[in-house]
Amino acid sequence: MNELELIARLTRSLPANESVIVGAGDDCAVLDFGLPDRWLLFKTDAVVEGVHFDQKAAPEQIGHKALARCLSDVAAMAGTPSCALVTLGLPRRFDPGFVEAIYDGMKKLAVRHGVAMVGGETVANPDRVLISVSLLGLVPKQKCIRRSGALAGDAIFVTGQLGGSLAGKHLEFEPRLAEARWLAEHFPIHSMIDLSDGLASDLRQILQSSQVGAELLSEAVPISRAARWLARAAAPAKTPLQAALTDGEDFELLFTLAGKKAVPLLDAWKKAFPDLQLSCIGKITQKPGLKIQGKKGLHPLTVHGYVHFQES
Amino acid sequence: MNELELIARLTRSLPANESVIVGAGDDCAVLDFGLPDRWLLFKTDAVVEGVHFDQKAAPEQIGHKALARCLSDVAAMAGTPSCALVTLGLPRRFDPGFVEAIYDGMKKLAVRHGVAMVGGETVANPDRVLISVSLLGLVPKQKCIRRSGALAGDAIFVTGQLGGSLAGKHLEFEPRLAEARWLAEHFPIHSMIDLSDGLASDLRQILQSSQVGAELLSEAVPISRAARWLARAAAPAKTPLQAALTDGEDFELLFTLAGKKAVPLLDAWKKAFPDLQLSCIGKITQKPGLKIQGKKGLHPLTVHGYVHFQES
Repeated sequence: MNELELIARLTRSLPANESVIVGAGDDCAVLDFGLPDRWLLFKTDAVVEGVHFDQKAAPEQIGHKALARCLSDVAAMAGTPSCALVTLGLPRRFDPGFVEAIYDGMKKLAVRHGVAMVGGETVANPDRVLISVSLLGLVPKQKCIRRSGALAGDAIFVTGQLGGSLAGKHLEFEPRLAEARWLAEHFPIHSMIDLSDGLASDLRQILQSSQVGAELLSEAVPISRAARWLARAAAPAKTPLQAALTDGEDFELLFTLAGKKAVPLLDAWKKAFPDLQLSCIGKITQKPGLKIQGKKGLHPLTVHGYVHFQES
Repeated sequence: MNELELIARLTRSLPANESVIVGAGDDCAVLDFGLPDRWLLFKTDAVVEGVHFDQKAAPEQIGHKALARCLSDVAAMAGTPSCALVTLGLPRRFDPGFVEAIYDGMKKLAVRHGVAMVGGETVANPDRVLISVSLLGLVPKQKCIRRSGALAGDAIFVTGQLGGSLAGKHLEFEPRLAEARWLAEHFPIHSMIDLSDGLASDLRQILQSSQVGAELLSEAVPISRAARWLARAAAPAKTPLQAALTDGEDFELLFTLAGKKAVPLLDAWKKAFPDLQLSCIGKITQKPGLKIQGKKGLHPLTVHGYVHFQES
């Protein structure tokens, strides 16, 4: 049983109440607490030593990553992050300077995005450092973008370049908050997700939630320089395209909107964000399944992204 | 450096924004998101295998405890819990039935208190199970009770009986949500906290936040039966009173209100909660410090509660 299967099993019959607009299964939970025009976004995400970072990572980078992952989920729903709580699991013997530097990394990012850090707790996790961040955000009800809204005929877009994040980006990425809000403000985006487990996996989340399929254009997938050289070093070696499709932790935005809006979007994007690539990488289809158009024609895409753990 | 010192250092200069009413340093963060009459309560709390539970605990009990601890913090501010997210750190090989039973324990408690479980995540924590729960609640602005409102002349009250929670109560306690809301509704409570680290430690939190002192009456401290027999088994043995003062995880309510309201409260409480003991255990003093009145007179209370970890 992998992570996705386990989560499906655990979330089958969760208790709900009248405040729940979206429960488990999207980038954030969406809650109606009685504000006239806005919903709350509620998210938690954890990073673990030896899993999401290793001893080569600077503590400031670890803190940055822990908060940035949550911010990226709020971005995926076109929201604005507001308040964070931090749970710090620490071995019984720890270096206070190391822990303070983790906090420094979080604080810098929080200040940049107007996020208040409102407390949390420290807890003994004897074998390794674990940081879990809980985040509250807000989103205008009319602008909240879910995974489940993709329609046949939509064009599929992705920001940035994909793959090879382990070479460094995963510790330093800036969550695409401004870009996501700009998208929601200016275009009728049908569905959105942030790329955490790899394009192939995360696009499948949109397809499953929206009950549609997709065709990707292999030539259109933006491949990062890091993906090109990490792919060769992988064992077994991957092609750079495979790396771009399956490497985790890109933290770019993947979204869809009606095909006829594709060209106006690309034009407007170039003016708004001249330094960030935006690529149209395929289209949403009525027929379920994920296919890719390569030099040898259209064939099913069988690769998957990062799978967090396997059951015994 | 112990947990309290570390937290003091980490929370010295946290980023804030206009939504923050109470940040780090109370049972929950208190946030103003623009609701006319209510504030949001925001809390996170984690339990770790080998620290907060061992392999003798049933998985349903582990799940119950993980959520109940957070609910107890919302109770301590007289709030109503609303939505929870669950972060589950799991070894790479795990028994899905065990994990489902943890969820079952949480679900039962959530349903009983009207709490929606709105998602969360699973993450690899290779060496042990860790469960972090994030909770959102609501509290009427006029009824929110903080740690910092204790005044000289207040009577100090505690619900239930203290000590010996490790004998079983820590896995099965019911958070005092109804009792706390009743208190806030019917009496002008000045300060409140839930007992997690032991009476001596948690009362010091109120004293420090409120910049006051306290005198306890040793004979008035309600000692549980479990404290009486666990105290003898402790190495080095404690007196039952020491156990009641220092054992962690009672999850009872500790609160203060003006001394002249003490008798009316005790009368009303007996009618409202005939099955739950309420004890007046001392008074708040202008002079800082925590003292205890025993058979040999008034002397400083030097014992402390549970300290989570020590720095190298």
